[in-house]
Amino acid sequence: MNEIKVTLSEKDIPRQWYNLGADLKGPMHPPLGPDGKPVTPEQMARIFPANLLEQEMTQSRWVDIPEEILEILYRWRPAPLRRARYLEKHLKTPARIYYKDESVSPAGSHKPNTAVPQAWYNKQFGTKRLTTETGAGQWGSALSFACSLIGLECKVFMVRISFDQKPLRRIMMNIWGGTCVASPSQETATGRQVLKETPDTPGSLGIAISEAIEQALEDQSGQTKYSLGSVLNHVMLHQTIIGLEAKKQLTLIGERSPDVVIGCAGGGSNFAGVSFPFVHDKINGAKITIVPVEPTACPTLTRGPFTYDFGDKSGQTPLLAMHTLGHNFVPAPIHAGGLRYHGMSPLVSQAVEEGLLEPRAYDQVASYEAALLWAKTEGAICAPETSHAIAGAVDEAIKAREEGKEKVILFCYSGHGMMDMLGYDRYLRGELTSYSLPEEELEKSLAASLTGLPKV
Amino acid sequence: MNEIKVTLSEKDIPRQWYNLGADLKGPMHPPLGPDGKPVTPEQMARIFPANLLEQEMTQSRWVDIPEEILEILYRWRPAPLRRARYLEKHLKTPARIYYKDESVSPAGSHKPNTAVPQAWYNKQFGTKRLTTETGAGQWGSALSFACSLIGLECKVFMVRISFDQKPLRRIMMNIWGGTCVASPSQETATGRQVLKETPDTPGSLGIAISEAIEQALEDQSGQTKYSLGSVLNHVMLHQTIIGLEAKKQLTLIGERSPDVVIGCAGGGSNFAGVSFPFVHDKINGAKITIVPVEPTACPTLTRGPFTYDFGDKSGQTPLLAMHTLGHNFVPAPIHAGGLRYHGMSPLVSQAVEEGLLEPRAYDQVASYEAALLWAKTEGAICAPETSHAIAGAVDEAIKAREEGKEKVILFCYSGHGMMDMLGYDRYLRGELTSYSLPEEELEKSLAASLTGLPKV
Repeated sequence: MNEIKVTLSEKDIPRQWYNLGADLKGPMHPPLGPDGKPVTPEQMARIFPANLLEQEMTQSRWVDIPEEILEILYRWRPAPLRRARYLEKHLKTPARIYYKDESVSPAGSHKPNTAVPQAWYNKQFGTKRLTTETGAGQWGSALSFACSLIGLECKVFMVRISFDQKPLRRIMMNIWGGTCVASPSQETATGRQVLKETPDTPGSLGIAISEAIEQALEDQSGQTKYSLGSVLNHVMLHQTIIGLEAKKQLTLIGERSPDVVIGCAGGGSNFAGVSFPFVHDKINGAKITIVPVEPTACPTLTRGPFTYDFGDKSGQTPLLAMHTLGHNFVPAPIHAGGLRYHGMSPLVSQAVEEGLLEPRAYDQVASYEAALLWAKTEGAICAPETSHAIAGAVDEAIKAREEGKEKVILFCYSGHGMMDMLGYDRYLRGELTSYSLPEEELEKSLAASLTGLPKV
Repeated sequence: MNEIKVTLSEKDIPRQWYNLGADLKGPMHPPLGPDGKPVTPEQMARIFPANLLEQEMTQSRWVDIPEEILEILYRWRPAPLRRARYLEKHLKTPARIYYKDESVSPAGSHKPNTAVPQAWYNKQFGTKRLTTETGAGQWGSALSFACSLIGLECKVFMVRISFDQKPLRRIMMNIWGGTCVASPSQETATGRQVLKETPDTPGSLGIAISEAIEQALEDQSGQTKYSLGSVLNHVMLHQTIIGLEAKKQLTLIGERSPDVVIGCAGGGSNFAGVSFPFVHDKINGAKITIVPVEPTACPTLTRGPFTYDFGDKSGQTPLLAMHTLGHNFVPAPIHAGGLRYHGMSPLVSQAVEEGLLEPRAYDQVASYEAALLWAKTEGAICAPETSHAIAGAVDEAIKAREEGKEKVILFCYSGHGMMDMLGYDRYLRGELTSYSLPEEELEKSLAASLTGLPKV
């Protein structure tokens, strides 16, 4: 248990993904069409290939990972499990803090874990081109990367505030052959409408999703499909390789199962990835505190109701049963662009409803403080999204010190901050302020978004 | 030999650095003072601590690595050895291409391998503050990182062209508590003089070194020392951990000793790091082609004479016996800022003189072509400096195909390109052109720089 880095050999990589859906108590609430009836696979087939839809709907607990996908994942997986000994020492905590380092992928985050299978299944299905949205740019670059390796065209709608804050992400997508435009754009009816109403909008993931779906639907040949980097069941499924590897690594060094598991949560994918295999254990009796951490500017799990809502601004997705701030919500332009999403993975939301998770919110100043502490102790510079998970881990380590308990903490280090220097610069200059979503703004968004929609 | 990633456990990390100086035939040419006499340790002691000077002068073949330094290096070392199977496949080469991945350090390059020992030895000696220069920013961020962990102040003079092209590197240094100014600056006599003569100069490493030394000398207390990220013997020494690890890793997978070893060369440090342990083998009879790759815009080894010259613009360093383009040379503003240096490590230069190395030059367009090929096959985005080594490896792999030989190629992947997107953008837009240093410009610089200086 004294190692600071635990590597797993290729031959020990997990060969199946874990589907939490098979273990939740339920009742599970199916996606609904505009008519209030459960959507059929046929309706979804216009934007997703049948093989991914099958994964989206599967009731199997375990899903085999095709060997061809593993071959690509081997470029950076198994990802290292590291121990944050220097942070532990600084905090004088008896806790042992482990983190799964997802920053080692070529795109710099956990996103390629699902980008690769999504591109691969689409290629198998005969898709030629994928459209998608991206917040901070992590997902857009991951999908461009995967499409480049697998041989698909890739078109990315990037939320305007991030497009402006993180111009280098666009170039990264271009290097891998992807095309990237700021959203809202003039290329779609949704984009044009939003720009007409609010020309200076920072954009949102909800708007960008609408634009990407619209452009996929426009291709009458059916060879353009849409790809989503979070929220959906099959995305959570693909990400569970994170937690499954972590389990094997903890076992390998003789460490016990974690007492606390933490991940930042925007749409829920890296959080689900690291935590779902442990939620499985919790359902089966293990005592684990499992914490999704979100920004106070976009407090979906901590303050949004659990109800049916659209995944996008213009209502092109099915209605999903999830925690939501309302599909019309435009989050404040915080630097953690990947956490600026009004909704949340239905699986994560359902797990919260079943009392399996303990969501928490941090504001961006507290998160940057944690990021700076991380850089000065562990030495690495994290993504602003990841800083929320670090803030959570720091608090848990301090709590362990106060309680005098030798806890094991595991969190997901979802990505590096190499492309996110401008946010750090603003923090260091003292230009960032704490911000929590005002109650009246939340009420207004919920009223404007949910009126007339079915309840769970 | 089918692995694409070879990890070495902490316990197998090399515990000694290798000093090529002990194995070169010589005669070795000592550093000279302005009076033409060999400099004494006392003269050097104004800017370097005695313990590092001892390493600079040592005749020992092997130098122990203190345990405390290894403890810090374990954060990212041993670095993985990877095999570029996808590039091999694309090139249809029978060669096996391995690369030592130095991009995994928190600062993103090989530079922390010497930044950590330099900061540590300075701390032991009682130094409070280090000054340094940086080209592309790799070295400045590495030293800021090391000083942050070890507890020293850090002041960086960053070559103006890179300061402008890579603004995010300055923020990175700030995150680790370092201070960074563009060079030439108004803070030193050298900087003010250069700005007066050439207000729109892109700057050079030679100028930045002068400024950093000047500021170290200003501190009468002796608690400010100067730190150099390349060129000097002790820097080459610290970097040999790269090649020593690579040797162990090749042995571990049953691979034979490489036929070709490649590294990009600016001041020579990552090249020396990967290659010197193999130069040792070559001296002892092994048949290896060892290739430092430099830019055609700054062709120190391929076109500069081997003679005594200053390491900096204003002649504050001792005279070093090395290949040089003249200390007044200001290289064209290519994106590989780390390769824009007029001189070269005396050890690397001497090895060239002894026929042990086969230097080669590539222009930046050819190098970016190699970088794009890399991104689309291997998936990762490399630093512009590193792209020169990749271009060399690609040519060697093609040669192996043409010769029908199953060669083993090893190169140093010196750093990632996350902070270097603007150069890629210009390449993708077709804004970059091929450039070789014109003969008349070289002649002019040599005349202006070397007249009156001693010869080797």
